[in-house]
Amino acid sequence: MGESLEERQTGRTEAFSDGVFAFAITLLVINLKDPGLSPGVDLFRGLLNEWPAFFALVTTFFTVLVMWVGHHNMFTFIRQLDTKLMFANGLLLLVVVLTPFATILVADNLLTSQAREAATVYAGLFLALSVIWNGLWYSLSRRKLIRKNIDERFIRSLGRQYSVGPLFYVFALVVSYFNALASVVIILLAAVFFAITASIPKSSRTP
Amino acid sequence: MGESLEERQTGRTEAFSDGVFAFAITLLVINLKDPGLSPGVDLFRGLLNEWPAFFALVTTFFTVLVMWVGHHNMFTFIRQLDTKLMFANGLLLLVVVLTPFATILVADNLLTSQAREAATVYAGLFLALSVIWNGLWYSLSRRKLIRKNIDERFIRSLGRQYSVGPLFYVFALVVSYFNALASVVIILLAAVFFAITASIPKSSRTP
Amino acid sequence: MGESLEERQTGRTEAFSDGVFAFAITLLVINLKDPGLSPGVDLFRGLLNEWPAFFALVTTFFTVLVMWVGHHNMFTFIRQLDTKLMFANGLLLLVVVLTPFATILVADNLLTSQAREAATVYAGLFLALSVIWNGLWYSLSRRKLIRKNIDERFIRSLGRQYSVGPLFYVFALVVSYFNALASVVIILLAAVFFAITASIPKSSRTP
Amino acid sequence: MGESLEERQTGRTEAFSDGVFAFAITLLVINLKDPGLSPGVDLFRGLLNEWPAFFALVTTFFTVLVMWVGHHNMFTFIRQLDTKLMFANGLLLLVVVLTPFATILVADNLLTSQAREAATVYAGLFLALSVIWNGLWYSLSRRKLIRKNIDERFIRSLGRQYSVGPLFYVFALVVSYFNALASVVIILLAAVFFAITASIPKSSRTP
Repeated sequence: MGESLEERQTGRTEAFSDGVFAFAITLLVINLKDPGLSPGVDLFRGLLNEWPAFFALVTTFFTVLVMWVGHHNMFTFIRQLDTKLMFANGLLLLVVVLTPFATILVADNLLTSQAREAATVYAGLFLALSVIWNGLWYSLSRRKLIRKNIDERFIRSLGRQYSVGPLFYVFALVVSYFNALASVVIILLAAVFFAITASIPKSSRTP
Repeated sequence: MGESLEERQTGRTEAFSDGVFAFAITLLVINLKDPGLSPGVDLFRGLLNEWPAFFALVTTFFTVLVMWVGHHNMFTFIRQLDTKLMFANGLLLLVVVLTPFATILVADNLLTSQAREAATVYAGLFLALSVIWNGLWYSLSRRKLIRKNIDERFIRSLGRQYSVGPLFYVFALVVSYFNALASVVIILLAAVFFAITASIPKSSRTP
Repeated sequence: MGESLEERQTGRTEAFSDGVFAFAITLLVINLKDPGLSPGVDLFRGLLNEWPAFFALVTTFFTVLVMWVGHHNMFTFIRQLDTKLMFANGLLLLVVVLTPFATILVADNLLTSQAREAATVYAGLFLALSVIWNGLWYSLSRRKLIRKNIDERFIRSLGRQYSVGPLFYVFALVVSYFNALASVVIILLAAVFFAITASIPKSSRTP
Repeated sequence: MGESLEERQTGRTEAFSDGVFAFAITLLVINLKDPGLSPGVDLFRGLLNEWPAFFALVTTFFTVLVMWVGHHNMFTFIRQLDTKLMFANGLLLLVVVLTPFATILVADNLLTSQAREAATVYAGLFLALSVIWNGLWYSLSRRKLIRKNIDERFIRSLGRQYSVGPLFYVFALVVSYFNALASVVIILLAAVFFAITASIPKSSRTP
């Protein structure tokens, strides 16, 4: 029974995390505003003027999606999950919950004099996410909670790949001091980078 | 273990997609406004005057529902899911997330001078959805990621059925240039068409 | 494989329905307003004055919860689910999605001159829900989609129990013409009735 | 079939509860406001001034998360679930649904003259949650609905651990009469306490 109990535990933690990830990215939509409500504004032009909102939405959507795919892959490697790791996962989810708010900050302020401050908060949030992520993985691999049939070298290569995240977001944080738009573009590029490298190299897994 | 690992992967992608689909159609309700808040307006008459909001809600609800049923059926045919397909699925979900916003545009503007612009955005969004959908299916069938015990002819007939979607939405897009209401009606009819044809013809599946 | 395919289909329809039910009742909370925002209003007194909002929330919450428990029980009896039934289930979910809006109507208008109109809409919505519910069950039992090891008499007794729903809501609809509060109380009592009778009598099931 | 039927019942109740828990904590984010919208306010300073909103969000997030982990652990011990317990679980979920509203009350009023009233409502809500929780567990253990292979002593020790909850929240309720901030800090400390003690002592489970 012990085995199935643990499997169920992983299952519910995955389901709960999926819920938070899915709601957070769906909630992004409530920040979009109907430009037709302002009298005398052409709808198409109004939507074009809202481009920072769409740009921030797409950047957050893909960053969180990439993180969900990574979360999903990471959990296929986990043999067992204890309460401590559930709370580490909870801390990760807290930051995921905050992403729609940081997205609103960027969307509202990207064309104002406070654009750089908003971008700093945005980059800082993703930096926090990636640091917690690396801590979670480090703790998993150190405490031998990873399935036994996964190649040691594969685990290390995954750890190296994850450690690129904080570098990207520190860079975005520094850039946000000079240019808000460039900082958000770097965060979008980080998502593209992870989307490309996230493919699991099957050959490096033992059969 | 490989088999069960892949099965779990499909499972979580389905659960995540279900969350986004379900949440997106439930969020539609927050656009409905209590007409009783405007002083001196009769509640029944106020609700009747809000018919564009209900009409757009029902159209989006059934279109997304039909898409969910199709997504559900499509995933029963998938043998395996790789990271590339997870991101293609993610792109599909991004457009699903945007549907409540496009619904608000139609609901707010159907009786104003910007009705046709709103209908164009609405039809354009569903066109994008159906194009991504067809791309996803094309990529699945090309890359042999479909279960082996499904009849080749059935796969091709499903592909033909899916390809009707873009035709409907291109038609709705063209019509939106002349009449917004007619354009939305076409989109509702597309949902009815897919609801009728979505029934899986059991006879064409190999046992 | 046929069997497991069908089982998976039921599984995802249940998961999707669960999502819509769960989001709809959680969304009820966004209608509650902080009375502390109005200057000079005591917080406790302000919350007490908001009792129609809490009353409507609790009534809707328990009605939808009872319906979810019933949905859950109903699905344990279903042997197979086809596309037609998925859409019947979708129609049910559409009305579930509308319940937070009907709740807002009652919450906002219970103490105004439009209370009876709001209660009529509220009762009408639950009447529609229960009629669709009965149609779904009738269609399931007529088309032999119920598990074979369930006693015929049990199926008929369940049908009789479900048919009480529309009676309750027609009564609430008639009463709403005279007194809004009494009408909502009847709907709350209907939820209590179903909560008591929803217990599955194990003895009437064949082993 | 009986066994698998019951297992499915627990499964859907868990999935439904997960949905409500996950959605409730994600909804917390919509209360955060962009300080950049007020002209002339520095974004960083504005966010700092919003600390009560972040503080209340974090407190509620971790309290509900701890409760979810506990709910998760509790359900691994449940052998069977009947309709009565589904409704007891429903009552628990009703209070969970109200937590984002109580969080808004604290966030909005922590720096106003009504801070203590808001803290009283907040502490009262968590007191209600912990009382329902203990009632649920008492009813489960009394009615022999717990898996047979769990040690009696472990069940009793879990019951003792749960009974600490109401003590914490009664204390927070009393303190709220004197100091709102201290009351919320106590609730945060309660979450920390449960996070530490929630680890399942494996040794006390029979193999």
